[in-house]
Amino acid sequence: MGEFDLIRRYFMRPAMDLANGVEVGVGDDCAVLVPTPGARWLVSSDMLVEGRHFLSTVDPARLGHKALAVNLSDLAACGATPRGFTLALALPRVDEAWLAGFSRGLLALADAHRCPLIGGDTTQGPLNICITVFGEAPAGAALLRSGARVGDAIWVSGRLGDARLALEVFRGTLALDAGGFEAARAAMESPTPRLSLGQALRGIATAAIDVSDGLLGDLGHILAASGVGARLDVDALPRSALLAAQPAALQRECLLAGGDDYELVFTAPAAARLPDVGVELTRIGVIELEPGLRVVDAQGAAVAHGLRSFDHFKA
Amino acid sequence: MGEFDLIRRYFMRPAMDLANGVEVGVGDDCAVLVPTPGARWLVSSDMLVEGRHFLSTVDPARLGHKALAVNLSDLAACGATPRGFTLALALPRVDEAWLAGFSRGLLALADAHRCPLIGGDTTQGPLNICITVFGEAPAGAALLRSGARVGDAIWVSGRLGDARLALEVFRGTLALDAGGFEAARAAMESPTPRLSLGQALRGIATAAIDVSDGLLGDLGHILAASGVGARLDVDALPRSALLAAQPAALQRECLLAGGDDYELVFTAPAAARLPDVGVELTRIGVIELEPGLRVVDAQGAAVAHGLRSFDHFKA
Repeated sequence: MGEFDLIRRYFMRPAMDLANGVEVGVGDDCAVLVPTPGARWLVSSDMLVEGRHFLSTVDPARLGHKALAVNLSDLAACGATPRGFTLALALPRVDEAWLAGFSRGLLALADAHRCPLIGGDTTQGPLNICITVFGEAPAGAALLRSGARVGDAIWVSGRLGDARLALEVFRGTLALDAGGFEAARAAMESPTPRLSLGQALRGIATAAIDVSDGLLGDLGHILAASGVGARLDVDALPRSALLAAQPAALQRECLLAGGDDYELVFTAPAAARLPDVGVELTRIGVIELEPGLRVVDAQGAAVAHGLRSFDHFKA
Repeated sequence: MGEFDLIRRYFMRPAMDLANGVEVGVGDDCAVLVPTPGARWLVSSDMLVEGRHFLSTVDPARLGHKALAVNLSDLAACGATPRGFTLALALPRVDEAWLAGFSRGLLALADAHRCPLIGGDTTQGPLNICITVFGEAPAGAALLRSGARVGDAIWVSGRLGDARLALEVFRGTLALDAGGFEAARAAMESPTPRLSLGQALRGIATAAIDVSDGLLGDLGHILAASGVGARLDVDALPRSALLAAQPAALQRECLLAGGDDYELVFTAPAAARLPDVGVELTRIGVIELEPGLRVVDAQGAAVAHGLRSFDHFKA
């Protein structure tokens, strides 16, 4: 099968492509979209590399889901409504079973969020998945990292740390029973982008980011961009029963520096009324004037953690 | 140097980022752009893999230039005005000399076309460069592959085939003197995206595409999308003195199926007055009712060529 057959068979779906303001989808030099009058255009791009972001043994449908989910999560963090995405794919070889699974997982999530595949590229090379997503938000409504103010409460969606539990099992440093491993693995491989929440937080949240590299580092980006500090209550961090059953030190590592959570952490005035979109929201701290991030326990005592965020170019 | 330092040092330039309707550039979850009222939004994405699209020995500044040029060429083929691009980069290691050269070549071309880097991703992995470009065109003005009509003349910009000469030298199948090799290599490594031409062809060209995989294949995409055929005069194809000095069979292979030319091939009514943007334009054939692409010589005799376009998943 050649490059163009591959695109046609697995990735072209004219009906979907032409919905949602897509004038030209896959199959020309560019895709052509109709912006919503007055809206801002939001763009984000993420690259996933085998062995770094996923294991070669991952179910291809889950990988397709995750590759798009991590990009949609960036739109969610900005409060954007998805409009479409491009997929650039380097494949060592044409493996039809893999492609069928990958495109199924990818396009199912795309359909669920009305975010059509509008273009891209395929080439031969070490497995690499690069997705760029486009979304919209009303002028001035995008949630940025820079708006947190002293006194704002810090909130997080969902639960943190389960994805890291799965990683530790794959690393051989942790054993879980079969049910626990499957739950943790699903958290790692099938994250849910919090798009409805992000959109509902427009005009309410003062700053937001998605937790992809670990809570400490990602909240740190908000603090740096906003020029503020924070106090974070580690005992308040929402966790699954699975994680709550682990040793305390491991719990803290997974919660504070786990990575791959794809929950939203955001700030809002203490008195703000938060939207109910069916996602658990937990208040985890407060924005303070003093720079830096102070991690405390439920009694307010400082917690020494020595943890840092994930960095692709540090050990 | 960590991931964020790397981005800051080589790729963040706030002044440029915030020009040209970019509200938020590199450094948040998404970039935020202000669309021009009434314009359509055009998107294209290309992925470059070491050993496939470039050699490990390529000058990094030329590679940075080319990685963006091949994407801008897609905007040019649609007649779009660039607005910005994202860069996702997988690097085996942090090589500061390489990054300095790569970003210099990349951003010089970006500046020349007022196309700011607005976001992206860096990760550790086999060298892979994925760029997604965004541009605009007035509603209904984008040049597509599907508009060629019977009787239209077929035109090509610039000259074809020199990039392929360089490839043949690297493959060891051809020897050129030093001056000839440097010229061919520059054609391969530093293509010029024909953005001014593409924009000037709005409302004039009926169909357009950029020649990236070889003229036969790329013109073939216009024919297929437009439901027409064509006659192509191989002797009319514009070529450098360097290429004209090569054996006839090699000339034809380079002209018809060379690849990496990044010239525009387009169709226009025979009587159309073409814009002069300082780029050589050559009439190379005519659109016909009969499906298929007939290659003829200057005397109108059929030329058997047996050539096909480049396909990443065919030998």
